[in-house]
Amino acid sequence: MHWSRWGDPRHTTTLPDSAAELMTLAFGEIQPQPAVDLRDVRVPVAGLATEHVAALRAVVGAAHVGGDDADRIHHTRGKSTPDLLAARAGDFSDAPDVVVRPGSADEVVAVLRVCAEHAIAVVPYGGGTSVVGGLVADRGDLRGVVSLDLRRLDRMVALDEESLTATLQAGLLGPAAEALLGERGYTLGHFPQSFEFASIGGFAATRSSGQSSSGYGRFDSLVISLTVATARGLWTLGRAPATAAGPDLRQLVLGSEGTFGVITDVTVMVRPAPAEKVYETWRWASFADGATAMRRLVQDDLNPTVLRLSDETETAINLSDPAAIGLSDAGGVQMVCGFEGTAARVARLRAEVHEALGELGGERAGEQRGAAWAEGRFAAPYLRDALLDEGVLVETLETATGWSNLQHLYTEVKAAIGAAAGEQGFDPVILCHISHVYRAGASLYFTVAMREADDGAAQWAPIKRAASDAIEASGGTITHHHAVGRDHKPWLADEIGAPGVAALRAVKQALDPEGILNPGVLIP
Amino acid sequence: MHWSRWGDPRHTTTLPDSAAELMTLAFGEIQPQPAVDLRDVRVPVAGLATEHVAALRAVVGAAHVGGDDADRIHHTRGKSTPDLLAARAGDFSDAPDVVVRPGSADEVVAVLRVCAEHAIAVVPYGGGTSVVGGLVADRGDLRGVVSLDLRRLDRMVALDEESLTATLQAGLLGPAAEALLGERGYTLGHFPQSFEFASIGGFAATRSSGQSSSGYGRFDSLVISLTVATARGLWTLGRAPATAAGPDLRQLVLGSEGTFGVITDVTVMVRPAPAEKVYETWRWASFADGATAMRRLVQDDLNPTVLRLSDETETAINLSDPAAIGLSDAGGVQMVCGFEGTAARVARLRAEVHEALGELGGERAGEQRGAAWAEGRFAAPYLRDALLDEGVLVETLETATGWSNLQHLYTEVKAAIGAAAGEQGFDPVILCHISHVYRAGASLYFTVAMREADDGAAQWAPIKRAASDAIEASGGTITHHHAVGRDHKPWLADEIGAPGVAALRAVKQALDPEGILNPGVLIP
Repeated sequence: MHWSRWGDPRHTTTLPDSAAELMTLAFGEIQPQPAVDLRDVRVPVAGLATEHVAALRAVVGAAHVGGDDADRIHHTRGKSTPDLLAARAGDFSDAPDVVVRPGSADEVVAVLRVCAEHAIAVVPYGGGTSVVGGLVADRGDLRGVVSLDLRRLDRMVALDEESLTATLQAGLLGPAAEALLGERGYTLGHFPQSFEFASIGGFAATRSSGQSSSGYGRFDSLVISLTVATARGLWTLGRAPATAAGPDLRQLVLGSEGTFGVITDVTVMVRPAPAEKVYETWRWASFADGATAMRRLVQDDLNPTVLRLSDETETAINLSDPAAIGLSDAGGVQMVCGFEGTAARVARLRAEVHEALGELGGERAGEQRGAAWAEGRFAAPYLRDALLDEGVLVETLETATGWSNLQHLYTEVKAAIGAAAGEQGFDPVILCHISHVYRAGASLYFTVAMREADDGAAQWAPIKRAASDAIEASGGTITHHHAVGRDHKPWLADEIGAPGVAALRAVKQALDPEGILNPGVLIP
Repeated sequence: MHWSRWGDPRHTTTLPDSAAELMTLAFGEIQPQPAVDLRDVRVPVAGLATEHVAALRAVVGAAHVGGDDADRIHHTRGKSTPDLLAARAGDFSDAPDVVVRPGSADEVVAVLRVCAEHAIAVVPYGGGTSVVGGLVADRGDLRGVVSLDLRRLDRMVALDEESLTATLQAGLLGPAAEALLGERGYTLGHFPQSFEFASIGGFAATRSSGQSSSGYGRFDSLVISLTVATARGLWTLGRAPATAAGPDLRQLVLGSEGTFGVITDVTVMVRPAPAEKVYETWRWASFADGATAMRRLVQDDLNPTVLRLSDETETAINLSDPAAIGLSDAGGVQMVCGFEGTAARVARLRAEVHEALGELGGERAGEQRGAAWAEGRFAAPYLRDALLDEGVLVETLETATGWSNLQHLYTEVKAAIGAAAGEQGFDPVILCHISHVYRAGASLYFTVAMREADDGAAQWAPIKRAASDAIEASGGTITHHHAVGRDHKPWLADEIGAPGVAALRAVKQALDPEGILNPGVLIP
């Protein structure tokens, strides 16, 4: 992962000409805002005492404790736009003191014991792709911060071909997990935009949802059991696909973002790798029409593997195909509809979906743009870096609600973003898509772009606040799949209520009495 | 509900001749064991002080506080076989001191405040159908026990026809909820065996699963949001069909069996009422063959609404049709396969399922027995009473596990039941069926029948213990849909581990610091 950008440094791109023209058209003159040179970055002096580093080395081996600047820089924060802006400005004040790489779940427990004993914060680190500030610890009275890099936990521990479940270690990144499963003919089918760099443990800890959630399900819905390292030892939860044995404590760990313990492996449902994949696009007269069609499909149990709908602005800018980004005058909105499975199943479901969408007034637009979407599906974060280089601030936020509230929430959030940007004298472009659908409702994913001010972070903060307030006031959840981290914490308290906050604090106190696990994250 | 039997007193039955013959054949001479006469029942003196009863009356109105013997008897315990045996013997030592019937969620909060202030235990009471001892409070140092009867909370508060969700109050019994939904053209589709007498709040508090779970889903999977009365006030959870806003606290309340708060309403997903219902049976050479077929169906996304498979013994005794109970010599095992939905959907899915089951070696046996199953689906508990009358002890227990462990678990539990009964000199008939299937595994539901000893409760206890130990040792969950109550508590600790117990206790302390809510239930 690049130290100040998304992804593989070899894939760093510049803005396509078509996009550059569009930006000038939208925002007028923009001034390039290059990142500082890595040589100019200064990292705070590591504050952990030699004896404590030695205790950590004793647990995982000296080779697996990293304390040099490069290591610390690479484990600083995540990949939200504010995170990138700080990195680009050379601000690494949030760097951990040391990076510890355990090789087993037992080593994780031992590291937690050392850190509990010596009051050292532990930030579990998988792929480093948080976009909600999930990787920065409140130091408080603690002696220092360990970034607990789980990448050495990279095995598929078990594959049960009868139950169709796989036990995957937390440090496996998306592509490695898919490769291990693929060798045996299976897929997890979990493809969030962060797929190439995010980890199995992260998917679980944040309740990730992938672009194929319509067909494969959200990550949390795939979890059968999991193992969590706590300072009290290993905790294994989940004996059956379903149970009435009290509250579902797996659901307490899922989404806990490393604050209760460190997830070391997860047993998830897998599927046979699809023999066939088809992605096609449909055109609708309006975002509302397209949304109604999505609702009718899913409420009628017709679930394509991928189902995405861009609003008018996103369709016009065609963000679904970064290579072809630019204004389109085709009008209406675009839906991507993807089918994966056996040839027979794809053919049958596709015929049913075509019939339904046709009756609902959709216009089939072929497979070209669908294929382009699939091709570019993980590329948007690279585009964000190229935009930041050129002086265009771009960030995303997301929510979900019931179908009957969806258009209201959409309108309110968009208005709040526009108003908050306008108060600062900026005229943003606001794009939106629906990419996760359920029988009872759907997600809304907003992308906001505008000319960057001198201080991009200060520019974005009130807009994010206004959007979050609007989400809360309009009955949406503060996050559908990005998680809480530090950025959404102020709104979580309202969403889960005072008893909910009390419950989270009580569990935290019970499982992490020293308060070393990701302090400052999640819990209001 | 009958005071010492299941269900509507007008539906009390005697044992069909065919069943009586079978029992004699299986167990030799059996001696009728009639229940005591209601006039001979003695209820302990109610222990609650006049001032406390007055405080409760002030909250809900004097008309809604019941303290006479009949009321207290009807709110004593649930409907497990040990519960029935105690009632039949005239033992009402667990009677609550008073029955309080709040008329609103706010009144529930106010009742909890009175009880918290005066250290009075509160047992939430919906339909009184617990089969795991979920309705008996540990009195400990508390001043008395209130049975909090929620039946006055009987409204459908909202129906969202766009999101396809309904907000149902906790005190609605199954048939009333279906009637309210049915008037508007919808169904909840939740039909556990207790359907006719169990409540919406109970379904949520115990993670109920219905006979149509294959098509409609378990109750917990249908819940979008819920309201919980706590001594801290009303707690509302759930803003979206899915969220990444931290741990899913709805899943902490679902299955909490009244120990954290009192669920006052639940917003659940509903479906259009099915235009067509077809139940048919299939014959398989063995339980293992039938189970494989179920697994293949569900893993291939072919989900009939109802999918049940009896083992060889249950098939032979044909418990699926109580009216026709008796030995069958057809051999093999019977699967019930039910389809509900639009005529077109039923036809299409049915064709696909027929093709798949045919290829897997199943033999279609027509609709007659399927219709008989549907007709008698809620009748088994009445039959249990008739058997108890005749001196046959009958009880059920259930578990779930992954497909690859299912036959092992089946064999081990059956052997443990047989051995524990054998040690006492009894030779039980053990029936089993699979009635809830998932991609990753399935439930096992055992029915055990044997000649009743003089002390049926003492006879059953070691058998239940042996079965539970075998479930634990063989990797099953201690309960798939009956919940924990008091009866499964000794095994819950192992299933959720020490950190899980610590988490439950911490939440309990945070939300119910006075420990008045269903004390002794659920939490180890």
